[in-house]
Amino acid sequence: MPTAAILDRIRVVLIRSTHPGNIGGAARAMKTMGLSKLYLVEPASFPDPVADARASGATDVLHSAIVVSSLSEALSGTVLSAALTARRREMSLPPRMPREAAAEIVGHAMTGDVALVFGTEASGLTNDEVALCSLPVTIPANPEYSSLNLAAAVQLLCYEIRLAALGELGPVVTATDAASFDEIEGFHRHLEEVMAASGFYDPATSKRLLPRVRRLFGRVRLEREEINILRGILAALHRKPD
Amino acid sequence: MPTAAILDRIRVVLIRSTHPGNIGGAARAMKTMGLSKLYLVEPASFPDPVADARASGATDVLHSAIVVSSLSEALSGTVLSAALTARRREMSLPPRMPREAAAEIVGHAMTGDVALVFGTEASGLTNDEVALCSLPVTIPANPEYSSLNLAAAVQLLCYEIRLAALGELGPVVTATDAASFDEIEGFHRHLEEVMAASGFYDPATSKRLLPRVRRLFGRVRLEREEINILRGILAALHRKPD
Repeated sequence: MPTAAILDRIRVVLIRSTHPGNIGGAARAMKTMGLSKLYLVEPASFPDPVADARASGATDVLHSAIVVSSLSEALSGTVLSAALTARRREMSLPPRMPREAAAEIVGHAMTGDVALVFGTEASGLTNDEVALCSLPVTIPANPEYSSLNLAAAVQLLCYEIRLAALGELGPVVTATDAASFDEIEGFHRHLEEVMAASGFYDPATSKRLLPRVRRLFGRVRLEREEINILRGILAALHRKPD
Repeated sequence: MPTAAILDRIRVVLIRSTHPGNIGGAARAMKTMGLSKLYLVEPASFPDPVADARASGATDVLHSAIVVSSLSEALSGTVLSAALTARRREMSLPPRMPREAAAEIVGHAMTGDVALVFGTEASGLTNDEVALCSLPVTIPANPEYSSLNLAAAVQLLCYEIRLAALGELGPVVTATDAASFDEIEGFHRHLEEVMAASGFYDPATSKRLLPRVRRLFGRVRLEREEINILRGILAALHRKPD
């Protein structure tokens, strides 16, 4: 698959960016590495002349950006979503380094659309946002000062993805028949309903159960046929006469 | 040699930077990767509040920056100098990729000071400046739009240098609280019973189901607590009155 076609399938999602300059900087960073699909979730100000100025020759990326109102909308139709997160969270999957993650991202882009998700400048992604994504990624920064500028973080991830897509890093991890974001979310909704109906899950008291379950199935990178099996089991158990 | 000591020997040299914001952005990029020695050759405006603002928590790097009037001064005392150059020049050595260059830079930093040299925003380094340096480096950018922001280029090179200095490309994923063989087998027996009782699994006809389920959960490397959750779900569903 040609490098350009792979890169075309990778969208960069910026959540609630507060500085339009960073949106412009991110667009420029993307274009220098051959990426062009930008999604903005509730940007503080967009379009904005400051973003255009910082985008330099990459205003085309800005002008074709898609503004949406939720992360779920931005992830709809993707087969993999990588979330950039600065710190290790107890409930999250073990994070990948950018290089490792880039190989997986490119592998999945061979089969469908992939998202690369960046949180708001001051506080990054929320736990709920990380939980919606399938692959946490952490830049191995200075532990005493790990706060990269948003556009700089986009630059770095897009660089690793470009190298991986160029095939400079050895064999690419391929993802055959990976379940899509929508299929995975459908499974989680189904599981939650069945667990609640059975009395195992009480939304009022079990705060830790759903994140634990998401962490488990997030780690496995479910395939479409596996989703069908799991939902088949849930449906059979749910209708079973005692 | 400790990583911090290696990174302390690497200076970033910015030549005739025209935008103070980029100087601040470069300082921040350096600090996130553990570098701190900044040399400025004839900056257009320094110190400057715009640089301080963009440096965010890295104003200490700005405040200890050394302003000089020529590249030669900035290179004095170094054992290697790498020059970031966007295009292949007829007169220069064949350029290295950042990853390759980072390994050489770190190798040389074991023996003495090393410089990483970046040209002015609009036109990069002159041929004379590249000639003063020992190692040309080119970022493998999109040939149709290869103009990285200055601070973004500093971020990318410092990232490769940090990785090279850390001497590793990925954290070792440790398996904490991994479930034992017996716990995993207990889960599979439980799942098989429940699937058979529900009518979803018929041992006489479904030859492929159990191997598929084993493949799924084998991939995830289950933890003990996850086994408990999964078996809890199965038990709740199995006893559920219809």
